Amino acid sequence: MSVLGGGVIGLSIAWRVAASGCAVTVFDDECRTGGSWVAGGMLAPVTESWPGEEELLDLGSRSLARWPSFARELGDVGLRAEGTLAVALDSADVGVLDVLADHLRGLGREADRLTGRELRALEPGLGPRVRGGLSVPGDLALDNRKLLSALRKACAAEGVVVEPRRATVSTVDADVVVIAAGAWSGELHPALAPVIRPVKGEILRLAGRRGALPPPTRTIRAHVEGRPVYLVPRDGGLVVGATQYDSGFDAAVTVGGVRDLLRDAEVVLPGIAEYELVEAAAGFRAGSPDNLPVIRWLEPGVLAATGHHRNGLLLAPITADVVLTLLREGGTR
Amino acid sequence: MSVLGGGVIGLSIAWRVAASGCAVTVFDDECRTGGSWVAGGMLAPVTESWPGEEELLDLGSRSLARWPSFARELGDVGLRAEGTLAVALDSADVGVLDVLADHLRGLGREADRLTGRELRALEPGLGPRVRGGLSVPGDLALDNRKLLSALRKACAAEGVVVEPRRATVSTVDADVVVIAAGAWSGELHPALAPVIRPVKGEILRLAGRRGALPPPTRTIRAHVEGRPVYLVPRDGGLVVGATQYDSGFDAAVTVGGVRDLLRDAEVVLPGIAEYELVEAAAGFRAGSPDNLPVIRWLEPGVLAATGHHRNGLLLAPITADVVLTLLREGGTR
Repeated sequence: MSVLGGGVIGLSIAWRVAASGCAVTVFDDECRTGGSWVAGGMLAPVTESWPGEEELLDLGSRSLARWPSFARELGDVGLRAEGTLAVALDSADVGVLDVLADHLRGLGREADRLTGRELRALEPGLGPRVRGGLSVPGDLALDNRKLLSALRKACAAEGVVVEPRRATVSTVDADVVVIAAGAWSGELHPALAPVIRPVKGEILRLAGRRGALPPPTRTIRAHVEGRPVYLVPRDGGLVVGATQYDSGFDAAVTVGGVRDLLRDAEVVLPGIAEYELVEAAAGFRAGSPDNLPVIRWLEPGVLAATGHHRNGLLLAPITADVVLTLLREGGTR
Repeated sequence: MSVLGGGVIGLSIAWRVAASGCAVTVFDDECRTGGSWVAGGMLAPVTESWPGEEELLDLGSRSLARWPSFARELGDVGLRAEGTLAVALDSADVGVLDVLADHLRGLGREADRLTGRELRALEPGLGPRVRGGLSVPGDLALDNRKLLSALRKACAAEGVVVEPRRATVSTVDADVVVIAAGAWSGELHPALAPVIRPVKGEILRLAGRRGALPPPTRTIRAHVEGRPVYLVPRDGGLVVGATQYDSGFDAAVTVGGVRDLLRDAEVVLPGIAEYELVEAAAGFRAGSPDNLPVIRWLEPGVLAATGHHRNGLLLAPITADVVLTLLREGGTR
């Protein structure tokens, strides 16, 4: 089998398929604008959920349930289970959190409302403009770059060969080709061209400094002036994401994007003004029309595993399982 | 002769001294937090001038006069002669520009007051909050990184040897040692230790993008909420600087510094929101108590050429000339 794409989806599939006894080759040019490299690292089906996207919540929840054992097999991927605080800055935000809380309770899930004071007791760094929030247990976070290197090691241990270049369906010689090229998948098969689009995102990596407040222990999410922002603790610092643009494959980190991320993150956690800005990066999510991934046979011998949009890391374990099942069934559709 | 430091000051001295017939070795570890590498590239004695700093204005003006021929000998250093606009956002800023205009006129120099409308006729990208300004002819700007590489070539052509490592006065074997190590000079001689201090500065490099407004043709300077900001055109983009901290040799680019630079630059030129943020860097100016450089014999055989603070690029030609004179006089004090 050949896998086009060595991001988290491609490597997860390669690892699992190789472990089942097949010879697997991965083609990948280690592109630093791939979603897996730039990602924030949240495994957050619950806090990402919204009325109307129950199918995605269901899929995400089933994949999240697989993550602890998936991660255990991989070794150190920086898994964190401290959960998420969704915080509100104004009454409109409070209204949004009300909708989310009702939605989650309707699905039988926990979602505890907290006052500003209760939030600051949990995370003392939260700014004075934070006036309420929702504690959402269950979501996980991990270090996407540790995950990539752990997956590469796991693949190597199962004999997967990684060719350090891009390939196409017609240039590889294999019984089965899996298209797992994220945002670029649309360029690799006519059936994906109208379905998969690049959704650009910018993200910042911050490091704590001597004398600065320590980062929070939980992932913090907020809307600031209508813009979503998240802050994921990472190795004494934070990952702050993410902007979202439908603007093709332009990978420029923009002044406006960085300005918004810094401003919004500082509203939530003012103490980060003293942090070091270590990296500002842009990457491409693989957008799909319904935000659901495309995991199916496109034609005999050609399988798609793409379109994971904001949920590639989360959905990696279930995607690998679905691909294994499709391969075992041996069908082509 | 040995020169400790291969920034703009050290290389200018090495070049000129080698051209006069001496054998010269430069010791330099190509540190990317040196002032020469991080600098904005303004040669701006006039717009930087202020009542009480007449000596610096005089020194700067004499060095500026040397720059056109200095640059011609070096080749392409990206020299620009479009001048500077100092702009005001509020009545306090207008007051500051009044002081500067009176000061300059008192010194017999040009300084034309312009309305917001007149400014926007010259530079259409200026934002609506810009309400007046001062056109200051005469100041130059250049590309500091082109300058560094042109100086390295000029040195090589004169037979200067560059040793890619740091050295100290006692570890080099030379009749004369010149300390031109910028902010680090204080570590190299007891007479400099109490005089030279690192003054950290952060700077951004932006690139224009398709569809974005072109950068201005002139250097733009402003104060935003009391913070000075300058925008220097550079190769289809801009350099935006600079923060200023007395905080030792901590080279972290901070969230607060980048946020201020982006925010202040956007007030002046709102169209840069669409620009690419190519680089955020921190470096160290060589601060001195009176903002004047220290160019003198420290002891027999040991010369200092440091303490250039914000004016290293500007003062490079005159510094080299002063050093040549000191060497010719052959004295030690």
